[in-house]
Amino acid sequence: MNKKKVTVIFQPSGRRGQAERGKTILEAAQELGVAIESICGGNHTCGKCRVRAKEGLFEGSSFEPQISNLSTFQPEESNFIGQKEQGEGYRLACVAELQGDALIYIPGESRTTQQVIRKEVRNNSVELNPGVKCHYVEVPPPSLKEPLGDFERLSRALKNNCGLKDLSIDFPALQSLPQRLRSGEGKVSTFVWMDREILDVQPEKVKDFYGLAVDIGTTTVAVYLCNLHNGQVVATHSMMNPQVIFGEDVMTRITYAMTDREDGLKRLQEAIIEGLNGLVQSAAGTAGILAKDILEMVVVGNTAMHHIFLGIDPRHLGLSPFPPAIHNSLDIKARDLGLKIHPGANVHVLPIEAGFVGADNVGVILSEEPFKKEEITLIIDVGTNGELILENKQRLVSASCATGPAFEGAHIKFGMRAAPGAIEHVRIDPKTLDVKFKVIGLEKWSDEYSPVEIQARGICGSGIIDAVAEMFRTGVLEQNGRIKNSISNSRLRKTENHNEFVIARAEETSISQDITISANDIRAVQLAKGALYAGAKILMKVLGVERLEKVILAGGFGSYIDPERATILGMFPVCDLQNIIAVGNAAGDGARLALLNRGKRAEAERMAREVEYIELTTHPDFTNEFINALPFPHMQEDLPHLKS
Amino acid sequence: MNKKKVTVIFQPSGRRGQAERGKTILEAAQELGVAIESICGGNHTCGKCRVRAKEGLFEGSSFEPQISNLSTFQPEESNFIGQKEQGEGYRLACVAELQGDALIYIPGESRTTQQVIRKEVRNNSVELNPGVKCHYVEVPPPSLKEPLGDFERLSRALKNNCGLKDLSIDFPALQSLPQRLRSGEGKVSTFVWMDREILDVQPEKVKDFYGLAVDIGTTTVAVYLCNLHNGQVVATHSMMNPQVIFGEDVMTRITYAMTDREDGLKRLQEAIIEGLNGLVQSAAGTAGILAKDILEMVVVGNTAMHHIFLGIDPRHLGLSPFPPAIHNSLDIKARDLGLKIHPGANVHVLPIEAGFVGADNVGVILSEEPFKKEEITLIIDVGTNGELILENKQRLVSASCATGPAFEGAHIKFGMRAAPGAIEHVRIDPKTLDVKFKVIGLEKWSDEYSPVEIQARGICGSGIIDAVAEMFRTGVLEQNGRIKNSISNSRLRKTENHNEFVIARAEETSISQDITISANDIRAVQLAKGALYAGAKILMKVLGVERLEKVILAGGFGSYIDPERATILGMFPVCDLQNIIAVGNAAGDGARLALLNRGKRAEAERMAREVEYIELTTHPDFTNEFINALPFPHMQEDLPHLKS
Repeated sequence: MNKKKVTVIFQPSGRRGQAERGKTILEAAQELGVAIESICGGNHTCGKCRVRAKEGLFEGSSFEPQISNLSTFQPEESNFIGQKEQGEGYRLACVAELQGDALIYIPGESRTTQQVIRKEVRNNSVELNPGVKCHYVEVPPPSLKEPLGDFERLSRALKNNCGLKDLSIDFPALQSLPQRLRSGEGKVSTFVWMDREILDVQPEKVKDFYGLAVDIGTTTVAVYLCNLHNGQVVATHSMMNPQVIFGEDVMTRITYAMTDREDGLKRLQEAIIEGLNGLVQSAAGTAGILAKDILEMVVVGNTAMHHIFLGIDPRHLGLSPFPPAIHNSLDIKARDLGLKIHPGANVHVLPIEAGFVGADNVGVILSEEPFKKEEITLIIDVGTNGELILENKQRLVSASCATGPAFEGAHIKFGMRAAPGAIEHVRIDPKTLDVKFKVIGLEKWSDEYSPVEIQARGICGSGIIDAVAEMFRTGVLEQNGRIKNSISNSRLRKTENHNEFVIARAEETSISQDITISANDIRAVQLAKGALYAGAKILMKVLGVERLEKVILAGGFGSYIDPERATILGMFPVCDLQNIIAVGNAAGDGARLALLNRGKRAEAERMAREVEYIELTTHPDFTNEFINALPFPHMQEDLPHLKS
Repeated sequence: MNKKKVTVIFQPSGRRGQAERGKTILEAAQELGVAIESICGGNHTCGKCRVRAKEGLFEGSSFEPQISNLSTFQPEESNFIGQKEQGEGYRLACVAELQGDALIYIPGESRTTQQVIRKEVRNNSVELNPGVKCHYVEVPPPSLKEPLGDFERLSRALKNNCGLKDLSIDFPALQSLPQRLRSGEGKVSTFVWMDREILDVQPEKVKDFYGLAVDIGTTTVAVYLCNLHNGQVVATHSMMNPQVIFGEDVMTRITYAMTDREDGLKRLQEAIIEGLNGLVQSAAGTAGILAKDILEMVVVGNTAMHHIFLGIDPRHLGLSPFPPAIHNSLDIKARDLGLKIHPGANVHVLPIEAGFVGADNVGVILSEEPFKKEEITLIIDVGTNGELILENKQRLVSASCATGPAFEGAHIKFGMRAAPGAIEHVRIDPKTLDVKFKVIGLEKWSDEYSPVEIQARGICGSGIIDAVAEMFRTGVLEQNGRIKNSISNSRLRKTENHNEFVIARAEETSISQDITISANDIRAVQLAKGALYAGAKILMKVLGVERLEKVILAGGFGSYIDPERATILGMFPVCDLQNIIAVGNAAGDGARLALLNRGKRAEAERMAREVEYIELTTHPDFTNEFINALPFPHMQEDLPHLKS
């Protein structure tokens, strides 16, 4: 019992190895390369790392796994593990410590799969006018009569052939210039940033070169790798923001950065930089290029993500009057940030507005262009923070409200990221309360498959909205969000603490248990949608708007939101159904547009100045509006014929 | 005999320690922190690391030093060690390897002392208008009504109070801005570079801040630490260029960078960067400031030093038509170069002309302003390369010639850097051939001290010029440079291979041997001055100049050159004595002027374009002129009354 190393075997993969006594199961799994889901990063809060300890008889082996070889069951585990499950050996992998040999079974729902969050690219067309351009020129060799420097000869060629004047050259490009010019016998492709700075010189005719648009969300980070020669997106990758292990929401991260430890900010920054370097690698791999072929990066993110990404002290963002360190856009060398793309590449960080309304919102404005809209338009960008933009032709106002990550699948019992197996849409039959659903990875609705073909693993954001809205529409929920006791149906049942409604039956899942929506889940959704609704109401008051003429639903959470279900839920004040559109990740789209068109950067700078920021937390009406917005709205007359 | 570690004791310091068997004495000394002079850096070529192995009886000790414990005497050692000395145990520390215990005596002349090369600052006055300025402003706090970003509030204050517009902020400065602004309660000193970029913000009223002017010579590197508040030089430090261990002259270093090994360029660059970081530390220490108080650096150096400092492939500098990678001046972040001064500091590298005529020559032009001179002026900048500038009111031409490091004390038997103990001036009595000399560190000439007070260690550049000129003036030398056989004097004597003339007698030295000028030394001086003279002649031909009206002797080699002795030597074509002036390190002066006045940078850029470069190596007349310039000139009529 007292040996320093213990043996642990993980099932069903069968991976085995040694781990230090006292390590948690999660730590041991990470060391052995065994993937266990952990949205909260081992902070005992998400409950996604449930595993089951088992005993076994391994004759003739020194391996002696016992359930009692784990540290004792902790109170925080009971938030996620019922008494019966506790008896079956269920534990949180981030809590239970290895005191001896262990045999650990990882249930399907706790296994990590490659995340395929649909931060898809819409086909917003934009004139191609990227920050970095490639100019092919022929540079004559130096002569004894005119032994002009390499840079000066190149500059002259660029001036004569491309009209580029007063160019400077980035330092690493200068270092390799003599060799590049000569190995290309003067015929070179020159990459010039903003008609100002030479970033690189290649001794050949280069056609394709690349840029990366990056959206740093509090919970999700998405990158769009674009070919700057033709504007096409060649790879889209995303990941959970690695900072979630330091805290799920913006305020927790700011607190961590500032008070938890001296190097808190540095650790947060390193986490996102390292994470981005990984995303760069995988996106480049998908496109079959090298990271160093990426010559520019455009970044959006809320103000806190923006500051932490740049290593700027974010503490004052959390203190009234919430001033950021800078509003202006920035151009920073990727190398100064530790980003491993082209050594001369610049990172263009879009400007930020105020409070937590940051460069991501500027991205949304770039992408959706509310200032060009004829109608009174509300844009809702749903992430861990909800950001709102409202315009009435004269003014553009914005606000930010804390929705929490419910719409991103966190804080929801069976919530998950939009990976294969996630339920992304739900329909409930009002008569039978029978459920059909759509799973990411399957073409058709669940009722067209036999149960074993479905293999659902959980519910992602759009599925959660659908499920709750359908439960209300079909009378499962009361207007206050409570599950009706009077209904009797096999899908509706009582568990230890709460009522819950079965969306997918165990046989339709890969996790061998029912996927349900619980009363707690519904509460989380209500809090989130209430905050959005209340925020929108305040903005409408500020602009004197009575009724919305258009609503744009943006956000990278799973599939596009269903406008009808969002309306049933009351995510925003009333608007005609046909004028509600879902657009996906508008912030990321904005980053991509700014990457492909430098005019969009000037527009962003202008818009960030023009939009008025409304601080909701200090607005006298907010609390009232929020409380009023928690119940579901009365069913509207314009929603009689819901598609089912 | 076969133990892996051997014991070595160094005398006279008595330092002892273990060294690996097979290491050279020099390597062992370096590991044990014992200073042995090594100008060539262990390349067996300078002969400055002569040491004497001794035997001893150490009863009751396991230490058994034997002369035979060293590897066998090598042919290259006999270039510096005579047969008699060999019998006495003399060895080159960089050649002899330790095969067993050894007792090593380091003679006085082989001990390193702190170098105090007089790269003094002349009192050129220049209007104070540095690249970096400090602005004290009071920044109002943000309000809920106007939650403006920190940078924007600071920018507004700088615009309103100092008229500075369109400022950007360097990335590290932005990172600390929120905290700095608040800890200063809005009252801050802001360091702004070229009215463009905020480099730093300090939460207090800062008066003194600093800049560093740097002259990277092939052999000597000098730095001038200046207070940018009042323009005063607060510390001057210099060192041997650490690259000498990779080769003494420019071509050898280029070869090393390009062919000796793959990372040759990187090693050369690291050597100078590391060396400069050391100089920064010591200069800052002298001034009682921190390296991070240095907010800008201005650098000059010849083209090869310039390229290597910047990590630019220098190979094409050595190949016709000798084009540099860039002529333009550069501003590079010190952090990109690995220079440890203020993290936001820029390094301004002055522009270069052509061939090997680099930013150092631009520094000379800035400092001496030949284009403003009324007279036809020749400027000679003597270093390892000699650089020449000639102007005739219409045109300004320049050239570079390889003089070798003789004038810097290298390749001269008793040559040394201008450290305490160096003979810097020499006078010979024409009748008695008696010698008096001046030693660095002593106020008066040697004849005013008793011999034991003098403690001379060697001869530095200006002393070598004096000595050879005096030997010719007093008839010791024939016009072709040969020592006259007919003279009989105790100071003139034959050694094994060569004649030599005694400048300081053993009892006047700290090295217990006569300090002499040998026939070889005279030959090295002749080659160097011949190259300068021939170069000047070519330039005069190019401009159609018959006679020089003014000669300016610049160079950082020891004390100022004596104009009369330089004339006797024939370092340059005839010019009236009263119009020959010595100015010390003009290149370094130019760097200092550009540091203190940004207008000088624009002037440098203009001058670097205007000066015409004449390639000497390919000029048809050069070889002839060079051969003609090797003998000493006929004694001129205008030199009858030399001070003695």
